[in-house]
Amino acid sequence: MGGFPPVDRDDWVRAPEGLALLEGGTVTAPPGFRAAGVACGLKPSGARDLGVLAADGPVASALVDTTSVLPSAPVRRNRGIDRAGIRAVVVNAGSANAATGSPGIDDADLMARRAAGGLGLLPEQVAVCSTGTIGDRIDMERVNAGIDEAVAALSPDGGAHFGAAICTTDRAPKGGAFRLALPGGGEVVIGAAAKGAGMIRPGMATMLAYVAVGAAVDPADLQEMTARAAAASFNRISVDGQMSPSDTLLVMAGGPPLPPGDGALLGDALAAVCRWLAIQMVRDGEGAEHAVRVVVEGARDPEEADRVARAVGDSPLVKSAIFGRDPNWGRISQAVGAALVGAPGPVHEPDVSVDGVPYASDAARSVLERVEYDLGISLGRGAASAELWACDLTHGYVTVNAEYHT
Amino acid sequence: MGGFPPVDRDDWVRAPEGLALLEGGTVTAPPGFRAAGVACGLKPSGARDLGVLAADGPVASALVDTTSVLPSAPVRRNRGIDRAGIRAVVVNAGSANAATGSPGIDDADLMARRAAGGLGLLPEQVAVCSTGTIGDRIDMERVNAGIDEAVAALSPDGGAHFGAAICTTDRAPKGGAFRLALPGGGEVVIGAAAKGAGMIRPGMATMLAYVAVGAAVDPADLQEMTARAAAASFNRISVDGQMSPSDTLLVMAGGPPLPPGDGALLGDALAAVCRWLAIQMVRDGEGAEHAVRVVVEGARDPEEADRVARAVGDSPLVKSAIFGRDPNWGRISQAVGAALVGAPGPVHEPDVSVDGVPYASDAARSVLERVEYDLGISLGRGAASAELWACDLTHGYVTVNAEYHT
Repeated sequence: MGGFPPVDRDDWVRAPEGLALLEGGTVTAPPGFRAAGVACGLKPSGARDLGVLAADGPVASALVDTTSVLPSAPVRRNRGIDRAGIRAVVVNAGSANAATGSPGIDDADLMARRAAGGLGLLPEQVAVCSTGTIGDRIDMERVNAGIDEAVAALSPDGGAHFGAAICTTDRAPKGGAFRLALPGGGEVVIGAAAKGAGMIRPGMATMLAYVAVGAAVDPADLQEMTARAAAASFNRISVDGQMSPSDTLLVMAGGPPLPPGDGALLGDALAAVCRWLAIQMVRDGEGAEHAVRVVVEGARDPEEADRVARAVGDSPLVKSAIFGRDPNWGRISQAVGAALVGAPGPVHEPDVSVDGVPYASDAARSVLERVEYDLGISLGRGAASAELWACDLTHGYVTVNAEYHT
Repeated sequence: MGGFPPVDRDDWVRAPEGLALLEGGTVTAPPGFRAAGVACGLKPSGARDLGVLAADGPVASALVDTTSVLPSAPVRRNRGIDRAGIRAVVVNAGSANAATGSPGIDDADLMARRAAGGLGLLPEQVAVCSTGTIGDRIDMERVNAGIDEAVAALSPDGGAHFGAAICTTDRAPKGGAFRLALPGGGEVVIGAAAKGAGMIRPGMATMLAYVAVGAAVDPADLQEMTARAAAASFNRISVDGQMSPSDTLLVMAGGPPLPPGDGALLGDALAAVCRWLAIQMVRDGEGAEHAVRVVVEGARDPEEADRVARAVGDSPLVKSAIFGRDPNWGRISQAVGAALVGAPGPVHEPDVSVDGVPYASDAARSVLERVEYDLGISLGRGAASAELWACDLTHGYVTVNAEYHT
């Protein structure tokens, strides 16, 4: 499937039968959703930095956010509202409103109230997200003016502006739309907009993702499929093993009712869309030149498989070797040896392959030139497996994260 | 205390009263120890690559090695001998003899036998260490010739050659000698040689350290003080959070008996010498330009303090900010927020300082220009603390680890 940066590997996205990209579509592709993105002066560049996405009518919603114990003010504020009853979201880029204490939470609440007033909603029907520098209070005068302007500009054609407004130093907005053909006829349109993980300010890989689904879904079902989709996508990527206080995924679903029995299909489609977004984030990771799917097989249990996948995917030695197109088997072995400290039973040297080719072979060298490839690690200890998408560690990463002086 | 790279911070080394650097001393400074370092052709440069260090008479010994579950062949082989009965060590650089299976273990055993034959010792009195590329069998013909040559060249003046032979891509050998004045008169001379953490081949930060102590110590006491010294030094450093299969610390002690009651003092001296070596490793970390002591205070318990210190010291975002001299408070907060997931009780934003100056202040900027400084993190959750030495993440690290193509 395409997108920007392109995701060429269909076996990574794993779209269910009937899911197809809608060329040129945006987050507002499903009927009943409007969006806008305006410039209110938070980004020094003058680019769009405030977005509003709203459903016209009743929708079910689901929200998944960061597991950090020091979440941003908007994340803390959103935890106080009913996650199933969200009708709109207001997002600013340029200031993360994180580590701002209770005044920051008040600011997030004021953003929700301002947007709700313009939209004719209750404040608790509006979610708030902020991304940008950490530790500074948000400029509420600019944000308030931006909210008013964005609410006034809401349009079914506003998805692209919304997608641009939520970005920070992303090389390009990530998002698009899909059409899911239902087995009994009819279709569900899904639109998505996302940002991350490529940020100088605040220097961490905040990911924000918004998905609009053009079908009415039971709220409990939606929360369950959203959590499952996040677990199989945004929770399976690593740019640098770092966790942002602002990470948020919001899904809103409304329109004709989903036919009974199609919930599992929609859940699979939602997971595929989220994986498609997540892989774009890895492809656009800070300084990234390669995206690799680490596939761990033969682990004793899923937790062990996950531990090894993260140890490999987060290893700066492995990531540097990916950048250098260096088939450095010892670095994989090293990461496995460290990850399995304390694991029961004997540990053997892992079998390593790239796109199915033995890592140590001459044929592997040409695979390492690919922009995307599978890094297979077989432990021979059991039947459990795990996958994780990771990018390489490059000079660009160091430049982005060192040469910006706050 | 000096050394190369210099360690300027006495408060980091914490030498006990009476411990002083012996200018120009080496690992063979204590009477009764001889060493040699020769070139046997394992390093393509033709530099010295095989070293032998031997005690002339009976000594007590203690050994601490890697916790990796995929240790190198020499580490596996050394685990089969009595760690208290080691009289000599043979070390080669250029090939790690790791991931070489049981033939590799046979090679390590043959190295011990060859050295033991020349030294008039039993094979189980000789430890073996190898550092270099991973996955290749060692060239035993060259190694055997090197062992013979080194054994023949053993000399009380051979410490510098030994120190050079154990290095790989270290910018310089690390080591020196100290004199410990005993409270009741008399002295103990301590010599040390170490390598790491700066290696292209095999691309991981193997650390090897050898300490010769010029006093007879009870073997059980020596093992206990060696383990304690390692825990307070080599286990408190992070270049890139990676674990080598070859890490080894060997201490040999022999000479006049240590006066009763001076064991604690010698233990403190050993810990200070190991910290002095460990900090040199950080200063000489791959591409490193800064060494920072992360000091976590106010944690609930020591484990929590350690977890936070490692999350901060291993964070590529924090390490890039140290390189960039960027007082990026949000990155510290982010690492703390991730490290304390699942921790009991409320978590507050940490107080951060550099050499005692608030991180957010203008005065902090000049501290960030220093080559060495304390990064203080106060959690306000309890009374436990931890320290960890870490270097920065630089373009040099990426270059070293990416641009070497195996």
